[in-house]
Amino acid sequence: MALNVEPAVAISNELVNQIGQMISQAQNIAIFSHIRPDGDAAGSILGLGLVLEEAGKQVQMILADGVPGSTRHLVGSNKIQKELNQPFELSIVVDSSDQERIGAVLPEGYTPDINIDHHPTNLYFARTNLVVDQAVSTSVIITQLLQELGYPISPEAASALLTGLVTDSLGFRTPNMNPQALHTAANLMEMGADLPQLYYEALTRRSYEAARLWGVGLSNLQRKNGLIWTTISLAERRAIGYSGDDDADLVNTLPTISGVKVAIILLEQPNGHVKISWRSKLGYDISNLALSLGGGGHKNAAGAMLEGPLDEVEKRIISATQEHIQSQSADL
Amino acid sequence: MALNVEPAVAISNELVNQIGQMISQAQNIAIFSHIRPDGDAAGSILGLGLVLEEAGKQVQMILADGVPGSTRHLVGSNKIQKELNQPFELSIVVDSSDQERIGAVLPEGYTPDINIDHHPTNLYFARTNLVVDQAVSTSVIITQLLQELGYPISPEAASALLTGLVTDSLGFRTPNMNPQALHTAANLMEMGADLPQLYYEALTRRSYEAARLWGVGLSNLQRKNGLIWTTISLAERRAIGYSGDDDADLVNTLPTISGVKVAIILLEQPNGHVKISWRSKLGYDISNLALSLGGGGHKNAAGAMLEGPLDEVEKRIISATQEHIQSQSADL
Repeated sequence: MALNVEPAVAISNELVNQIGQMISQAQNIAIFSHIRPDGDAAGSILGLGLVLEEAGKQVQMILADGVPGSTRHLVGSNKIQKELNQPFELSIVVDSSDQERIGAVLPEGYTPDINIDHHPTNLYFARTNLVVDQAVSTSVIITQLLQELGYPISPEAASALLTGLVTDSLGFRTPNMNPQALHTAANLMEMGADLPQLYYEALTRRSYEAARLWGVGLSNLQRKNGLIWTTISLAERRAIGYSGDDDADLVNTLPTISGVKVAIILLEQPNGHVKISWRSKLGYDISNLALSLGGGGHKNAAGAMLEGPLDEVEKRIISATQEHIQSQSADL
Repeated sequence: MALNVEPAVAISNELVNQIGQMISQAQNIAIFSHIRPDGDAAGSILGLGLVLEEAGKQVQMILADGVPGSTRHLVGSNKIQKELNQPFELSIVVDSSDQERIGAVLPEGYTPDINIDHHPTNLYFARTNLVVDQAVSTSVIITQLLQELGYPISPEAASALLTGLVTDSLGFRTPNMNPQALHTAANLMEMGADLPQLYYEALTRRSYEAARLWGVGLSNLQRKNGLIWTTISLAERRAIGYSGDDDADLVNTLPTISGVKVAIILLEQPNGHVKISWRSKLGYDISNLALSLGGGGHKNAAGAMLEGPLDEVEKRIISATQEHIQSQSADL
């Protein structure tokens, strides 16, 4: 029995052809993604980069903040560099909703050639913009694009692309999951990606220090009317010896707690700032709230960075989020 | 672009036709699965049962031990009963490697008509046996069978079948995962199953108190030479308001920490005892150690109960387990 499978994401033929032509006409290609990179940023850069290298291109893969831990095991991740070191003819930005988010790696005033992204907040900042906001990850769009353009995808590239999908969907469980993402994951396995292995490396493996950071975060947990939140101070992070500036992915576990509508982690940063991460259940869109505070993200996963002492930012954010939940509840 | 997708599992046409005929000739059908049921046992019974009901059959769905928590939210799960209450013409056993495992729900000496399973240890105990051991769950085989027989699968039945797949694969991450399981999951979503919702209900939902108990356990974490352990005192559990005498399944997360050979949780009990749970990675057998302390279990998951104050039991257990690891390391 053969089934007809709809394409993973709807991309116009015109756009596919245009991007295909831009790529085929360039020999030196630079690919960029956002600062504080996640698995989809690195997986999308690496998957696309490896395929273009295998097609004979000179490729520079740039992450201003370097390779994140969830993708450091991927073959080829050592090719990702923090800055450009040679000229290029074509620039591709992946998984970044605006140009500023890639860091100061391009000259001021430069306009990127191609922008491939799935964030609904994308600003269409490049000459050619392929934005599909119903795609679960940018790597799903890239997989679809490469298949339509007829580029062979090696097992190493497939592993990088599947890592992007697995991390952005938290292991196929985010509210935006759709059948196409699962078909794409199956296709990437068929191309040689080892799903159980990369799932472990990207999502379930955890350092001792990360486990203790979870301990602090979960011990500091508070809740009020469907809002659940926690704080981690710089002192707490240093006492544990956790070296990252992140929450060791604790934020993604908080919405699984019964009765939660919105979850927040407030993470004190070394520079007098506080990093705020929101996660919300279906029906609660927190992207506008993050945007209004100078941040960004998706309906159900967003972030922002605010200046100020941790306790003041906490009060301000909890109050703003509670108002936001109430206004949303009224809409439901 | 349309892709050709291979069938989820290889089932001979002859077997499909035979089972199809047996079902179409019967009006009263009884479906059984194993005792201590998991999500695949209940999901497979319910998925198959609902489809046959919708096709106009009288169906009895039997689980000797009742419906497990991971599937209690599924529409129709209240139809599952602990014993037969009327005659039937056709019996189908799902997800059970032998007949004994379904419990004492059938007369002695009775041979079931159809056996549908994915366990490699299956004994082919029925008149007609559909056993596909490369299938990730029995519900994948049932989905494939129903599709080949042309039975429509309702959203409720698809939800039950997808729950079987999600639970048996721990959310698509067990070593036996394959592309066909992902294509099947996609098909079940297309039929109306809400993957994020049923994933949450079956695998990730956790109470606020359980999350805070994890906080205590992870904050108290210690390690030494591949051994990682934590304690939770009665006072800590009461301060949180966690009502169970268990560790809220924290122990199963500890072996995912990098470098862990053996993980232990020591849980102070109300009666002056301490409950000890060990988990070990492949190559470290802790069942003998637990046995020598009056407990028991498997190679990689064991437990015991000791009398004494928490801190004394902790010292004794950590020392005994360290010696045990060293003797095992010598064997490796």
